[in-house]
Amino acid sequence: MAPYEAIGVANGSSNGVSDINGSTNGTSSINGCTNGDVNGHTKGRHRTNDTNNDEEEEEEEDEMFPSDLSLRIMGIGVQYPEHKIHPKDLDTIAQKFYPQTDALKKVLSINRYTGILSRPSIGECLHPLANLPSPPTITDLHSLFITEGVPLSVSACSKAIKESGYKSSQITHTVFATCTDSSNPGYDTFVLKSLGIKNSVEKVLLSGVGCSGGLAGLRTACNIALGAKARGRKARILVCATEICTILVRSELDSIVKEGNVRIGITLFSDCSSAVVVSNGVGEDVGDRGVYDVLGWKHQTLGGTEAELGFDVDPLGWKVILTPAVPSLTSTATPHLYSSLISSIPPQPSPPSPPPPPPPSPQKT
Amino acid sequence: MAPYEAIGVANGSSNGVSDINGSTNGTSSINGCTNGDVNGHTKGRHRTNDTNNDEEEEEEEDEMFPSDLSLRIMGIGVQYPEHKIHPKDLDTIAQKFYPQTDALKKVLSINRYTGILSRPSIGECLHPLANLPSPPTITDLHSLFITEGVPLSVSACSKAIKESGYKSSQITHTVFATCTDSSNPGYDTFVLKSLGIKNSVEKVLLSGVGCSGGLAGLRTACNIALGAKARGRKARILVCATEICTILVRSELDSIVKEGNVRIGITLFSDCSSAVVVSNGVGEDVGDRGVYDVLGWKHQTLGGTEAELGFDVDPLGWKVILTPAVPSLTSTATPHLYSSLISSIPPQPSPPSPPPPPPPSPQKT
Repeated sequence: MAPYEAIGVANGSSNGVSDINGSTNGTSSINGCTNGDVNGHTKGRHRTNDTNNDEEEEEEEDEMFPSDLSLRIMGIGVQYPEHKIHPKDLDTIAQKFYPQTDALKKVLSINRYTGILSRPSIGECLHPLANLPSPPTITDLHSLFITEGVPLSVSACSKAIKESGYKSSQITHTVFATCTDSSNPGYDTFVLKSLGIKNSVEKVLLSGVGCSGGLAGLRTACNIALGAKARGRKARILVCATEICTILVRSELDSIVKEGNVRIGITLFSDCSSAVVVSNGVGEDVGDRGVYDVLGWKHQTLGGTEAELGFDVDPLGWKVILTPAVPSLTSTATPHLYSSLISSIPPQPSPPSPPPPPPPSPQKT
Repeated sequence: MAPYEAIGVANGSSNGVSDINGSTNGTSSINGCTNGDVNGHTKGRHRTNDTNNDEEEEEEEDEMFPSDLSLRIMGIGVQYPEHKIHPKDLDTIAQKFYPQTDALKKVLSINRYTGILSRPSIGECLHPLANLPSPPTITDLHSLFITEGVPLSVSACSKAIKESGYKSSQITHTVFATCTDSSNPGYDTFVLKSLGIKNSVEKVLLSGVGCSGGLAGLRTACNIALGAKARGRKARILVCATEICTILVRSELDSIVKEGNVRIGITLFSDCSSAVVVSNGVGEDVGDRGVYDVLGWKHQTLGGTEAELGFDVDPLGWKVILTPAVPSLTSTATPHLYSSLISSIPPQPSPPSPPPPPPPSPQKT
């Protein structure tokens, strides 16, 4: 069996576990999650209203992905902002605006030992919005998302589309995600306009999935791509996840000081946009183009974890809920879910051996 | 050709145009939209980055739905809250808390002539949250959505599932939408838990689509259902849209008085949850069960309308953007888009005639 990769579609997070996608490759990375969702496959742990659910259990037992879904990631693009913040920057802002309470001292201590040297950010620690007398409001954050997050997204999407070899006008569907903006129309509308993607593209903008949005988007795109395949139609789906997290620093510091809570979100998250283009292979012979085949996916919510991970709306943005139970919850759940995913994917044919290197050129004499 | 219906999946709105779904029936209703998206089909109006897009144009010309998608809405559920507000209630709250500015007088005048006799609401005009010295914050609105919107959703979903004839444990995917809450995990997580839907269900929570969320959800569900069909797997997808709008009354009144704007959103919107269950027909003979067949759909964004319709996040909830241009924009766009949808759907066989009525019972003598 070929090795698989759990693709983490980067969106600026570092904790938890989320949607897991199986794909041919030899490395492994899993992206983060703030919403208590863990994807994978666990049998017989469902809560149901029915005592007789033989049919469902049987259905789950049978769940194997076909050996060839013909779903391929044709291009990947990632765009980090140009600035970085360092652990000392949190000290600077905290000392400038807040009394040094016990909770704040504890957070600043944790911040020095995360092992994170720097985090990509849309601004330095002296970004004007982070240095006003009061924290920015969620309206300010929305404006910032439009001015900073949309261009990041356009750049990440452009890179993914370029690598895919398609033209923007050939994109048929889009699946976007974010948990750090809320607007109608959503930010996807503005990104697509900048990219010159046609107005009739079918759009999905995901919410409620925290920073597992990237993989939730990839899973949704794969489902939609297969739906197009069922109609014999091409699907070239642009998937994008963008988060602007670092500007929440003042909002979180406010809560730390006012509520006396040790809140570590501000020591972890960064800003980024990432994108992929997924093809269902209809109407083209992709040959060896593309980056990854998507072989399958799993999605599961861990019951009773709603209070452990959260990111709920507030006048100052979204407030991070991240309890000390998260590492043990995720480390307990992940191995079983991951092996269950692997067992649902049929063995793949070995990739063709690379061509032998050309014979060495005759030495010039 | 059989008559078609543009199904409006109710979610408490009354303006604009949105996703259009074609379905066999003889009546017509279209739900609202606050996000500048209009669904339908218009050829040759795309902005593209390419001068040579023959392939895409050709693809659009060819876009016909197959004569039998095998997508059926198996059940529908709607749940309005138990209370109602009447036009005079807006007068009561406005006079209690605000100076009678010209803009406010204008809004109150419009409110008396909308033709709307009452609107379903989670509270009377004396709801405590609407009668505090200041408007409720977006945090308060989130809490209210969990305490009021989740039970509404559970009720609507239960009705749809009951009519579908499935058990909750047989639901395979869910597609939820809202534009009046923002949280991670999303409200769908809490609704599904109450319904006893299994933890491994594949979830989508849509945002950024304003009050076209119901039809955007139905379209997304249909795509996912076809994706499952491509893998030979059952899809029984629960679709739900829930909005709690009336509690925004104080936030909107604040803006009317402070900014001197005539904002009519508070005269129009109400609270509701609605749900459907969509089956892809795999693994069952649905026979004549179910409510509607889904025959096709169209989605299109009208270029340059982003500033005409909006609903963007604010510390006091979401602020309605609804310009006087909306009626002419939508009435101009709708007929063409709708006829384009109809022309993409093949003629349907006539439904079988209903059985003749039984012969009258012999009269008792």
